[in-house]
Amino acid sequence: MSYELIPEGSITDVAGFRAAGVHCGLKKDGALDLALVVSDRPACCAGVFTTNRFQAAPVLYNRDAIHSDPRGVRAVAINSGCANACTGPEGDEDAREMARLVGKAAGVDGNRVLVMSTGVIGQRLDLDKVGAGLAAAAPALSDRGGHDAARAIMTTDTRPKEVALRTRVAGAPVTLAGMAKGSGMISPNMATMLSLIVTDAAVMPSALQPILLYAVDRSFNCVTVDGDMSTNDTLLLLANGVAGNPIIEGPDSPGFVELRDAVTETATALAKKVAFDGEGATKRVTIQVNGARSREEGRQAAMAVANSPLSKTAIYGRDANWGRFLCAVGYSGVAVDPGQVDLWLGHLHLVKQGRPYDVNEERAAEILACDDIVITVDLGMGSEPVTVWTCDLSHEYVSINAHYRT
Amino acid sequence: MSYELIPEGSITDVAGFRAAGVHCGLKKDGALDLALVVSDRPACCAGVFTTNRFQAAPVLYNRDAIHSDPRGVRAVAINSGCANACTGPEGDEDAREMARLVGKAAGVDGNRVLVMSTGVIGQRLDLDKVGAGLAAAAPALSDRGGHDAARAIMTTDTRPKEVALRTRVAGAPVTLAGMAKGSGMISPNMATMLSLIVTDAAVMPSALQPILLYAVDRSFNCVTVDGDMSTNDTLLLLANGVAGNPIIEGPDSPGFVELRDAVTETATALAKKVAFDGEGATKRVTIQVNGARSREEGRQAAMAVANSPLSKTAIYGRDANWGRFLCAVGYSGVAVDPGQVDLWLGHLHLVKQGRPYDVNEERAAEILACDDIVITVDLGMGSEPVTVWTCDLSHEYVSINAHYRT
Repeated sequence: MSYELIPEGSITDVAGFRAAGVHCGLKKDGALDLALVVSDRPACCAGVFTTNRFQAAPVLYNRDAIHSDPRGVRAVAINSGCANACTGPEGDEDAREMARLVGKAAGVDGNRVLVMSTGVIGQRLDLDKVGAGLAAAAPALSDRGGHDAARAIMTTDTRPKEVALRTRVAGAPVTLAGMAKGSGMISPNMATMLSLIVTDAAVMPSALQPILLYAVDRSFNCVTVDGDMSTNDTLLLLANGVAGNPIIEGPDSPGFVELRDAVTETATALAKKVAFDGEGATKRVTIQVNGARSREEGRQAAMAVANSPLSKTAIYGRDANWGRFLCAVGYSGVAVDPGQVDLWLGHLHLVKQGRPYDVNEERAAEILACDDIVITVDLGMGSEPVTVWTCDLSHEYVSINAHYRT
Repeated sequence: MSYELIPEGSITDVAGFRAAGVHCGLKKDGALDLALVVSDRPACCAGVFTTNRFQAAPVLYNRDAIHSDPRGVRAVAINSGCANACTGPEGDEDAREMARLVGKAAGVDGNRVLVMSTGVIGQRLDLDKVGAGLAAAAPALSDRGGHDAARAIMTTDTRPKEVALRTRVAGAPVTLAGMAKGSGMISPNMATMLSLIVTDAAVMPSALQPILLYAVDRSFNCVTVDGDMSTNDTLLLLANGVAGNPIIEGPDSPGFVELRDAVTETATALAKKVAFDGEGATKRVTIQVNGARSREEGRQAAMAVANSPLSKTAIYGRDANWGRFLCAVGYSGVAVDPGQVDLWLGHLHLVKQGRPYDVNEERAAEILACDDIVITVDLGMGSEPVTVWTCDLSHEYVSINAHYRT
């Protein structure tokens, strides 16, 4: 399938979606901290959420809202600066009130609003600020507001994360676009950090949720920065149906696979941006595991390397200490046979059947001097390939997180 | 039970054990890098080893040696500077040859020798250097050589880790002593980093192995520095029987519980030294989890906090960002009810039933300024208490591991 990437695209490149981003005062530095996205038509919605036992109030709210009506979403509001997590019943009421304030400001039914929050855990949301911010955001809504919205959801991100692309679904031109935030506390599992993907495709909730699960399994569930799974991870997928393709009702409908793959492409582009903008990252790291018996085992082995502090610091230090990569595969829980494992750094075949092979330190140093590092492991057990994206672990990661709240 | 701690004790405080530590050239900086410990009488031995799938050559060698004769150990040699891991069949032969060289140098049967290695993974052991070192170590063996041996097994450790204590077993005076190394790549599981514990108690292998498993479950399996499980983790327990207590043959023998608890005390003291000397550590961190349904679940929750980079950097930065501790409990895999979880920092009751309670930032800052930090979590599910020891994550950890081999 071919995709036409829209240069500097944003969610408002999808017809029927308007957005705005404002500063309402939750962030102390005056940066944008409140995003409002409105769908002119009721949109179908699918969502995936954190599997952390401590689920933030907006996560619980969205689960209920999508469960009770997955077909009529009119607006999504996202604040940064406060996660509204571990805030008890008061936090739950704050999430509901935020949705009501969105409805009032945007002139839509408050029951058709979803909300997301990100920032410090354990602090109450300041609804006065949020309410004033929404009142300012509503008149600013426009079909060019996507970039401001993407900036407003950032926390320690160094840059906004956006993607937009055009494709064809059952012959009809369709546009997809998304934004995401996340830089630390990144280790999604059947879920993700905050992300919103929108499309004009016509698709029923019965098809939208399996499409989202397929895409997440190959995108956000394959990134990690630090192995810390957030309380607020949320990915929402909205489809407003204005593209005019024949409505996709299930896996057998024309266009199902095309839309599924296009959503996967969009989600993967966003997920990689999250991993590669990990807190303090100096390297973009791709872990490719081949020869696994299943996708799950392949991901398990890849994630062990991607989360290993020793592997990550070695990459930061440009040290081809490949024993650490192999060591992480060894404790991943996958029952590998050490004598069957091969490992490459870039194209350098460092380990063959569990033993040092072409250990060329000069070549390894050249490879590690690049910004993009690819580590390939062949487990020699099966045929499943899995790709996981991450970054290195630097002094800057420690600096950012030693003083996150101050 | 009461224990008399021997001030500045070492393994050679146990009668019948002599030791030496020498520099043989595996470390470039001239530091001690080869330890030799000899038991004048054949000693009974128990061992636990890494569960990493990539098991270093000396791990495989010791497993076999103990399996074939757990009653006649005469010597243990330990080198630092090279892990002899991921070295294939040549590495296996190197481990066997190292044992033969020990036998030759110390004048004991080479089949009654155990060997351990620690250092860089993937490099061959230099047996010329090891052989020369053993030849120098043998005449240096003495009943005051324990401290040199403990120094010779260090890698990034900032200080040697030793403990020695006296107690009574079935009425007879018994001495136990141990040494350990480890500072990074520390996340033992049914195993440990390198450690040797010796005692003069009279005990059969049938009782020694269960005693060791009990002790390890409560000591080395409850520490972590970075969640990276080594390829070389080994803990050996030698008992030479010169104390004269009635021989302990099994759980019902007089003195079994006393010896088991004394070994646990010794192992716990060593394990805490390892955790608190974690690479780059600036804080000694104790995670106490109460109210778990089982020891395993309690440890799972405690280890999630202890391994969380965000929790560890917050402690380093003296930031009472308790939401990160709670978040880690939430993704630990234990099915906690968020509304039942309490959390304390020192004596400060930060979270009650999942919600902020006594969030006194000034008091929290005072607590976090101390060198010893205790985080207590009550899961509210059962009655099992578990203690886990770790350290913070500092800039220095990144510095050490970015350039470990250079």
